[in-house]
Amino acid sequence: MTAQKSNGLFLTFEGIDGSGKSTQCKRLAAALEARGHDCVLTREPGGSPGAEEIRRLVLEGDPDRWSAATELLLFTAARRDHLERLIDPSVADGKVVICDRYADSTRMYQGLSRGDLRATVDQLHELMIGREPDITILLDMDPSTGLARAKGRQGHEERFEDMGLQLQQKMRAGFLSLAQEFSHRFVIVNGDQPPEDVAAEVLTATLKAMGH
Amino acid sequence: MTAQKSNGLFLTFEGIDGSGKSTQCKRLAAALEARGHDCVLTREPGGSPGAEEIRRLVLEGDPDRWSAATELLLFTAARRDHLERLIDPSVADGKVVICDRYADSTRMYQGLSRGDLRATVDQLHELMIGREPDITILLDMDPSTGLARAKGRQGHEERFEDMGLQLQQKMRAGFLSLAQEFSHRFVIVNGDQPPEDVAAEVLTATLKAMGH
Repeated sequence: MTAQKSNGLFLTFEGIDGSGKSTQCKRLAAALEARGHDCVLTREPGGSPGAEEIRRLVLEGDPDRWSAATELLLFTAARRDHLERLIDPSVADGKVVICDRYADSTRMYQGLSRGDLRATVDQLHELMIGREPDITILLDMDPSTGLARAKGRQGHEERFEDMGLQLQQKMRAGFLSLAQEFSHRFVIVNGDQPPEDVAAEVLTATLKAMGH
Repeated sequence: MTAQKSNGLFLTFEGIDGSGKSTQCKRLAAALEARGHDCVLTREPGGSPGAEEIRRLVLEGDPDRWSAATELLLFTAARRDHLERLIDPSVADGKVVICDRYADSTRMYQGLSRGDLRATVDQLHELMIGREPDITILLDMDPSTGLARAKGRQGHEERFEDMGLQLQQKMRAGFLSLAQEFSHRFVIVNGDQPPEDVAAEVLTATLKAMGH
């Protein structure tokens, strides 16, 4: 007789640039591992070898070399690969998959910011992806704080970062609106708190989603 | 007063491997140029700089590194780029665009051969591409002749070539079935004739589609 595997979980972090997603991803993984849960830490765009190649194709070179619609297709191809090769098998194996950005970011960036493609984004997701996270943590924060943090980072991939306060405000409102639309899976956490308080709230919400 | 531009045309060639598509593309372009029509000769997958990069991503490396669904998304991204950057602007400019393979090949290869994805192929085309050719020339030929010709070629991209007689037969039947489904734009030409006779039939059909 083999021990019964615990149920897997697919959890995503969303929020504006500089809201602390990657820090909180790591903190959550560490806290869950300490409690004996196997975690897989990943991110989008990318996350599997093929998806990382597509990410490079999109993010390198002239920012305007792909139209919003072509970029949407490329990111959806990357997501499909990531889902098939990493997310679905890991969840099936009883692991907790913690993903920094997923389809909600596409709804925001390709659907609201780069193009007015929200309806197309949703139809394409329905047709080619289908899978939603079990729980999505929205790190909600003051856009000017997020912008200052994002600008303070040394990064080579600044395409999604260098967009100004007005856009950050629009994105924050957009994420809050998504959280209402998909209220069954969204948990809004105040990202303006000290990181350890954010981490504690995130862990509580996650353990609750895992049935603890 | 400027001279009135002639109407553009979007023409595609389809058919099994070795059916003579690339030869007949060139012959048609030469014949139309000799009659004073501006032609753009192109091919899929690829055809624009971005689409060619996506082509390389798909065709290089392990043939199984992308699932049929991910490959479909990548080819659709390439088609969207090709359409936006080359096909649509050229047709709008009054040119005759002659394209070696297009969406009908996706209906066959991703829809019938690699996966059983025909319904998905059609829905994705409807959502993200929309554009059908004005006329499609199907070079119909005996599959064993096509296979012998395809095998006789020295090529580095053999992925779509090395698939055996049974598959060639299935593809031929599939293309003939597509020609019935889209009978308003398909013209079937017997590709077993000598190339000059094929070329003459193709030219006649094209001039008729152009209203001559």
